[in-house]
Amino acid sequence: MSGRLYVIGTGPGNPEQMTPEAAAAVAASTEFFGYGPYLDRLSLRPDQQRIASDNREEIDRAKASLERASAGAVVCVVSGGDPGVFAMAAAICEAIDNGPDAWRDIDLVILPGITAMLAVAARLGAPLGHDFCAMSLSDNLKPWDLIERRLTLAAEAGFVIALYNPISKARPWQLGRAFEILRPILPAATPVIFGRAAGRPDERLTVVPLSEADAAVADMATCVIIGSPETRIIQRPTKPDLVYTPRFAATETK
Amino acid sequence: MSGRLYVIGTGPGNPEQMTPEAAAAVAASTEFFGYGPYLDRLSLRPDQQRIASDNREEIDRAKASLERASAGAVVCVVSGGDPGVFAMAAAICEAIDNGPDAWRDIDLVILPGITAMLAVAARLGAPLGHDFCAMSLSDNLKPWDLIERRLTLAAEAGFVIALYNPISKARPWQLGRAFEILRPILPAATPVIFGRAAGRPDERLTVVPLSEADAAVADMATCVIIGSPETRIIQRPTKPDLVYTPRFAATETK
Repeated sequence: MSGRLYVIGTGPGNPEQMTPEAAAAVAASTEFFGYGPYLDRLSLRPDQQRIASDNREEIDRAKASLERASAGAVVCVVSGGDPGVFAMAAAICEAIDNGPDAWRDIDLVILPGITAMLAVAARLGAPLGHDFCAMSLSDNLKPWDLIERRLTLAAEAGFVIALYNPISKARPWQLGRAFEILRPILPAATPVIFGRAAGRPDERLTVVPLSEADAAVADMATCVIIGSPETRIIQRPTKPDLVYTPRFAATETK
Repeated sequence: MSGRLYVIGTGPGNPEQMTPEAAAAVAASTEFFGYGPYLDRLSLRPDQQRIASDNREEIDRAKASLERASAGAVVCVVSGGDPGVFAMAAAICEAIDNGPDAWRDIDLVILPGITAMLAVAARLGAPLGHDFCAMSLSDNLKPWDLIERRLTLAAEAGFVIALYNPISKARPWQLGRAFEILRPILPAATPVIFGRAAGRPDERLTVVPLSEADAAVADMATCVIIGSPETRIIQRPTKPDLVYTPRFAATETK
């Protein structure tokens, strides 16, 4: 017997940004695995079971959810944002790749969500309006040398850079170092966005030039977006500034 | 008097993937600007006006919508996918930046959506599970030299590469040339995904190794995702293969 495993994203937290298909998956499931604060975004029924775990226990959570689906349960693994962007979908695939054959028969349904960079970008204008990249700044799962190399190449390519997992208690210096790496490559006035809880009541959005960007503004739930040399700011007398990257690239980047 | 300008994304086309907040913006608006096939995804009421235009007329459409909002109308500009990713949000910002002062006073509300690469990725596993970039392959608005340079740097950085606007009648050779540029840099077995109409009844998903990737498989509505050297395929006897990029990077890319 094999059940079903939904892997969903709640979006950044505002329930109006969760898709109807993700909401239907929640309604259809009986066991929920995820990081506690993401599970807290769902209004579960008394017959629905909540199995919360720490956000550093992704692979153990993936295995536990696959075991339950393989035993016939209808299981929902819950990520914030989109499950495919630095979240649970990859952990589920890793567990299947290295797990028992039976896990390959599970009815796996991955449903996309609004990932943080899209929600932050929408609140400010269109900073991701042209070519961009998304990177996790965590060196828990890849060497820091590789992260430095990617940051350098991304800036040289002229990509807008969205950083996930920018900082944590265990990784206090990496974001500041990332700004140091980018400052010699990008103009001093390049807009840097710190976006947290986009679309929620506790939303916090800050835009500063790269020359003044301070890593202490970020926490682990912040998405940091660093503009390209093309990214512009529009001042509006009666409204917040807009930040956007034009659809065209007028000149070759250096 | 100033109205309101919503800029929304429908997601890839399945109505179950449009967020409730985007649906609420549609219900609240009276004039709709967009590319015809995107407007066709909405069920408009008789009192709601539909102003369709060609998908190459983004800046004219942006100006027309801003004029109407500035005159007091509640206007909705409709993109497919997410409005901030190679879509109308940047065109609206460009028009405001270069337009009359009054346009800066407009109540501009940009609402995120599920962009094509996220929807395609979810259908296949987690190909965007680690660092990735998104590029438009159109050389209408930037020089082809710059696109070649970005492709090379992105592959050297080890990013998974999502390509939007890969091909059209007016741009028939660019995608084939992109594969030629990437073949000397990436392993021959690197998975290449052609994803079209993800989540819709006419969905078409194809996965081939880079060595066999044929640009003719794509059309202008296809999102092409090219794996990194870390991207893996899981064969499943009773289900379609999964494609994923692990959360960890075991080794330095070359």
